[in-house]
Amino acid sequence: MNDKQVKEITSRDEDFGKWYTDVCLKADLVDYSSVKGSMIIRPYGYAIWEQMQSILDKKFKETNHENIQMPMFIPESLLNVEKDHVQGFAPEVAWVTHGGNEELDERMCVRPTSEVLFCEHYSKIIKSYRDLPKLYNQWCTIVRWEKETRPFLRSREILWQEGHTMHATSEEAKEETLRMLHIYEDFQRNYLALPVIVGKKTEKEKFAGALETYTLEAMMYNGVALQNGTSHYFGNHFAKAFNIQFLNKENKLETPYQTSWGVTTRMIGAVIMTHGDDRGLVLPPNIAPTKVIIIPIGNDDEVLNKAKEINLELTNNSITSKIDNRDKTPGFRFAEAEVKGYPIRVEIGRRDLENNTVTLVRRDTLEKITTDINNVYDKIKELLNTIQTDMYHRALKRRDSMIYKASNYEEMTDIANNKPGFIMVNWCGKRECEDKIKDDLGLKSRCLIDSLEVDGPCVCCGEKAVTKIYFGKQY
Amino acid sequence: MNDKQVKEITSRDEDFGKWYTDVCLKADLVDYSSVKGSMIIRPYGYAIWEQMQSILDKKFKETNHENIQMPMFIPESLLNVEKDHVQGFAPEVAWVTHGGNEELDERMCVRPTSEVLFCEHYSKIIKSYRDLPKLYNQWCTIVRWEKETRPFLRSREILWQEGHTMHATSEEAKEETLRMLHIYEDFQRNYLALPVIVGKKTEKEKFAGALETYTLEAMMYNGVALQNGTSHYFGNHFAKAFNIQFLNKENKLETPYQTSWGVTTRMIGAVIMTHGDDRGLVLPPNIAPTKVIIIPIGNDDEVLNKAKEINLELTNNSITSKIDNRDKTPGFRFAEAEVKGYPIRVEIGRRDLENNTVTLVRRDTLEKITTDINNVYDKIKELLNTIQTDMYHRALKRRDSMIYKASNYEEMTDIANNKPGFIMVNWCGKRECEDKIKDDLGLKSRCLIDSLEVDGPCVCCGEKAVTKIYFGKQY
Repeated sequence: MNDKQVKEITSRDEDFGKWYTDVCLKADLVDYSSVKGSMIIRPYGYAIWEQMQSILDKKFKETNHENIQMPMFIPESLLNVEKDHVQGFAPEVAWVTHGGNEELDERMCVRPTSEVLFCEHYSKIIKSYRDLPKLYNQWCTIVRWEKETRPFLRSREILWQEGHTMHATSEEAKEETLRMLHIYEDFQRNYLALPVIVGKKTEKEKFAGALETYTLEAMMYNGVALQNGTSHYFGNHFAKAFNIQFLNKENKLETPYQTSWGVTTRMIGAVIMTHGDDRGLVLPPNIAPTKVIIIPIGNDDEVLNKAKEINLELTNNSITSKIDNRDKTPGFRFAEAEVKGYPIRVEIGRRDLENNTVTLVRRDTLEKITTDINNVYDKIKELLNTIQTDMYHRALKRRDSMIYKASNYEEMTDIANNKPGFIMVNWCGKRECEDKIKDDLGLKSRCLIDSLEVDGPCVCCGEKAVTKIYFGKQY
Repeated sequence: MNDKQVKEITSRDEDFGKWYTDVCLKADLVDYSSVKGSMIIRPYGYAIWEQMQSILDKKFKETNHENIQMPMFIPESLLNVEKDHVQGFAPEVAWVTHGGNEELDERMCVRPTSEVLFCEHYSKIIKSYRDLPKLYNQWCTIVRWEKETRPFLRSREILWQEGHTMHATSEEAKEETLRMLHIYEDFQRNYLALPVIVGKKTEKEKFAGALETYTLEAMMYNGVALQNGTSHYFGNHFAKAFNIQFLNKENKLETPYQTSWGVTTRMIGAVIMTHGDDRGLVLPPNIAPTKVIIIPIGNDDEVLNKAKEINLELTNNSITSKIDNRDKTPGFRFAEAEVKGYPIRVEIGRRDLENNTVTLVRRDTLEKITTDINNVYDKIKELLNTIQTDMYHRALKRRDSMIYKASNYEEMTDIANNKPGFIMVNWCGKRECEDKIKDDLGLKSRCLIDSLEVDGPCVCCGEKAVTKIYFGKQY
């Protein structure tokens, strides 16, 4: 009965790409407009982003970061100051050439990222060791002129945060790079229920201008990798290019060391593609804007009053909830609650009142639980925790079942052709092998795993390996 | 002793424009960059904006508004759909003509405001009376290619919020226009301590495309007007241009009615120019990111511990405070606290400990108050309320002392040439008189005051007047 009423969503196993777009649109997360390559983030999608923002912003502030706002434009000459950086970004920026009816003396791009703006500012405000560290963050929109776009995953305009910090020593900057990586990791595991793999990017895949890029790699339901956040250590070559110097305690001039780190609305895509199912979105309780939806059944004042009572008790105890009392059939409202992925649905009707019970339905498992009407709050509180934990462990188990090891190229080719997921191999560290794997098998390196010992030769060339590494298809 | 150490700020009465820029820079609110016409909002300035955002966002949500995010670009053809609107904005937009190395098929502007984007979206999602009202808001950045810029007041890039709503009837839309105007008014009075005048704009001064524009007019210390927020009623002509229609309860097609409303970081400028003095910024407690600064005097562990104890008690009771324990003279730290405009400064030294007292200094009056050390929290709580109220009333008194009435053109000319402030006059409602006053006296109409009765002929042409109206110089 519910099934019939679910807004039509393509089966996830039939066409994962179409399933994803269906969920994004049918759960009212996004819409398209005449602005090609950009999306409208609708109220429900934006509420998820606001949840993410408020949790992360708190963590940033607790670790002494301050928010600032930089201009959105970068003059071409400023973008050109650091050569690796401009080569990485110039091909994909949007150029503003006219202000009103007048052509600009110098064209400006809409920021694709703001390293150069922060560096220019830091060169003015950092004078002494007392001014360090500088720990700034910015919530904003960036633009990259992508050819192919997909809601949340790859868009010409991206909502994100970008942290940019300066430190007196390389050790401190490296610590910061890892500190923020781990804040992201904790957030994605404990709030988004995403079992991300964290590690270092190869030389080829690192951020334009960085010395080291750390990444969070999430695996989607279909085995495809999603790079879900990065943290970069820059050393001091940007600082040198921008002539940023400070007087140390011995009154000598030194150049500071830099980091940057960012996550985007892409995290919403990762949540959808990790936890969603054929009925729609499934939101982890810790990130759901509405954790509980209460559906009164039948046109019955007593039932409605009880629903309101439950709603009030939940709200008063900081469990966001709402009542869906629209003039629609229960089946329709149940189905819509499933499309929207509210973690718990409360069903309450006349018979429930008589029995002193209500029915709770878990969105993640669709399990129905009958509970004492006087114990609803406690039960929901407990159940939200259970759902959060279960979702993480289910995703972890699934991910682990799709990680393969290959000790030679034949094995790797076989896995790549037949099994979606990640492949862990030994690697010699050479760009040629990384390129060959990409060209032959369509796999990109995900990240190096320093903590694991090498236990064989390079999977590609057979020469001495220096590291373990994950490969996978990517979004 | 303090005075010497205040970072050099031009006297407000000597050169108000320079005083303003000095305060913006010396209080670390903003900085300049190589991006001409845009500003960097530094941590302290941005923290004030975050305060404003969080208070207003809560008020918007309490009145059932939802946040969404629209694209930042508008294709030229979309901007062209509504003719008054495009004529108003096309001369001052930034045009993106290239994505990477390729010229775009159609150039796009960076949004100067988002009516057309919202209308396009509404045309897709509004089908039935059940879909109304739609109450959307967006926090974002807009761009207007201004020639002359000034921090917070007029900038090529502006941080703001823009509400865009659709309603089944013109009455509901008009109610919404006034509801949001009054939310702004309450906020500016009760949080920013700004005695704003609210009223309707003339035909000449209303927003491009609106039927009615309501405005909040603040008067700065120097008597110059600052338009500090607007709320527009559009009727349904945008909706017609965008073919937005809904089925009413009788199953007939109707066109809905529209509003939009917005406030910007300009409000920070209004706070500075209304309350600031020759020592720097003066922040109303209700908007100050840090309400209390605690300055321990002397290198004394017991004093420092007491400072920490006070800080903790305040923080635990939701009064944001911090300790300035830097290795600088007390005079330097006092002066800096004054530049930054923290509402209350707590001074505590060895002698205070011995006397069981601390000294509280009001930033608004510079008055020193000795208080029992065991009663600091209660005294501060009370004092913050007093300061907030006093600041509003002081600003109100000053504003009222600079509002003049003129019953004929000679009087008006005399006041315009000799007394800064607003001039209230009777007006015939004709554009020619409004233009003449602008050309002759450099005064622009601020707003109509419908509630006051006309008591004479038009100040300009001497013919029958239809309304009272304020004129003034403006930023």
